[in-house]
Amino acid sequence: MKKEFAVIGLGRFGGSICRTLAQEGMEVLAIDIDEERVNEFSNIVSKAVVADTTDEKVLKDLGIRNFDHVIVAIGDNIQASILTTLILKELGVQKITVKAQNDYHEKVLAKIGADHIVHPERDMGRRIANNMISTNVLDYLELSDEHSIVELIASKKMDGKSLLELDVRAKYGCTVVAIKRQTHIIVSPMAREVIREGDILIVIGADKDINRFEKNIVDHE
Amino acid sequence: MKKEFAVIGLGRFGGSICRTLAQEGMEVLAIDIDEERVNEFSNIVSKAVVADTTDEKVLKDLGIRNFDHVIVAIGDNIQASILTTLILKELGVQKITVKAQNDYHEKVLAKIGADHIVHPERDMGRRIANNMISTNVLDYLELSDEHSIVELIASKKMDGKSLLELDVRAKYGCTVVAIKRQTHIIVSPMAREVIREGDILIVIGADKDINRFEKNIVDHE
Ligand SMILES: Nc1ncnc2c1ncn2[C@@H]1O[C@H](COP(=O)(O)OP(=O)(O)OP(=O)(O)O)[C@@H](O)[C@H]1O
Ligand SMILES: Nc1ncnc2c1ncn2[C@@H]1O[C@H](COP(=O)(O)OP(=O)(O)OP(=O)(O)O)[C@@H](O)[C@H]1O
Ligand SMILES: [Ca+2]
Ligand SMILES: [Ca+2]
Ligand SMILES: [Ca+2]
Ligand SMILES: [Ca+2]
Repeated sequence: MKKEFAVIGLGRFGGSICRTLAQEGMEVLAIDIDEERVNEFSNIVSKAVVADTTDEKVLKDLGIRNFDHVIVAIGDNIQASILTTLILKELGVQKITVKAQNDYHEKVLAKIGADHIVHPERDMGRRIANNMISTNVLDYLELSDEHSIVELIASKKMDGKSLLELDVRAKYGCTVVAIKRQTHIIVSPMAREVIREGDILIVIGADKDINRFEKNIVDHE
Repeated sequence: MKKEFAVIGLGRFGGSICRTLAQEGMEVLAIDIDEERVNEFSNIVSKAVVADTTDEKVLKDLGIRNFDHVIVAIGDNIQASILTTLILKELGVQKITVKAQNDYHEKVLAKIGADHIVHPERDMGRRIANNMISTNVLDYLELSDEHSIVELIASKKMDGKSLLELDVRAKYGCTVVAIKRQTHIIVSPMAREVIREGDILIVIGADKDINRFEKNIVDHE
């Protein structure tokens, strides 16, 4: 059976969740206290309703208990966010994800039993800062505190050299798991694969090894 | 020489950028119109100043032109964000990243020459929605519209089977590039590597292939 989601709070964060879930064909109930916002989503999701979710009866009548996953994306009104989460928990909702505004908010949410707490602005700030530090890192995925996968732009310095010649694994301890070249992707490239300037290398390894590799492939202008 | 950053607007997004850059040892000038916010950052970054960045003279006096990268993280006050960006551009700042609140805001920022426009709430909403759809996808990195790297939790069904037995590449067209097991990471695992329930598989491939793989490794309860 298809999973059913309910999203409470249709700001940029909650709205983006609604759009993505709907695009992927999921059943979504969208809820907001603000009628204008609800109207915006009536053609996007399965069902959109105006409701104040700090009212237990309202949530009960919507049959919120039967949804597989409820997302609370109320932002500035921390009290409404906490109260809504509390009611969802009491009604026995299986999985609750809540957006937190600050550390205090997070602590309370954890205490009352939110299953997953997210900090979109803080987490995106971290991501973007990491991407800014090194201009040839395009994006990254943190695997652990010490390991990552990063996208690096191949420099002029690497142009025309094979992976064998560059000797990435032996010299830097990290591995090129894929190469993005224009629109296609070469997965698990052979050692004889020749790098071209502008290729995007997908590299996995310890952060310190990736940093060392990255510093060495940069063109020193 | 070390890169120098200036961050304007110390809300959650701008604040998180400041903290991350400072942690990584970068030179950061933090600016906000709100003295309380500035005080919060005086011990974190190289320099924190109270200033209204819609005032050209203020930015000139701060020598903003000499910074390598300026981030405008003013949120709700779209007019202040646009005016600040315009002044930075006129003063000849090399690289300007700006947070946009909505599509209108983005369009104007693009027109006046912002180098990089970000939508933290929208982008994080997309990320989190994608992670929610499949409960065994922990995180993902989009390589292109059609290719991704995802972290999948190995199910009971896979427990005790080697990668050779599972035949991931031939059956699903995607590749396990690493395995996270407790605190260590096995990069480019051998075909004879035996999967244990709870291992985290780092899988690269076309989205449709990853989806197919993911559906097949789920335990059907
Ligand atoms: N008690 C409530 N019941 C239902 N919806 C609510 C309630 N309180 C607030 N909301 C809604 O939650 C949404 C998000 O709230 P917030 O104040 O964070 O807006 P926002 O800043 O636009 O959000 P974002 O930062 O995601 O863009 C708003 O659309 C608001 O109407
Ligand atoms: N003209 C200005 N000059 C300098 N700083 C400004 C100016 N206008 C607003 N700011 C600052 O920008 C910061 C971010 O603004 P915003 O209104 O988005 O706050 P926020 O919602 O807390 O941000 P976030 O969503 O990142 O948490 C605030 O700390 C605000 O004081
Ligand atoms: Ca807000
Ligand atoms: Ca890391
Ligand atoms: Ca915000
Ligand atoms: Ca995709």
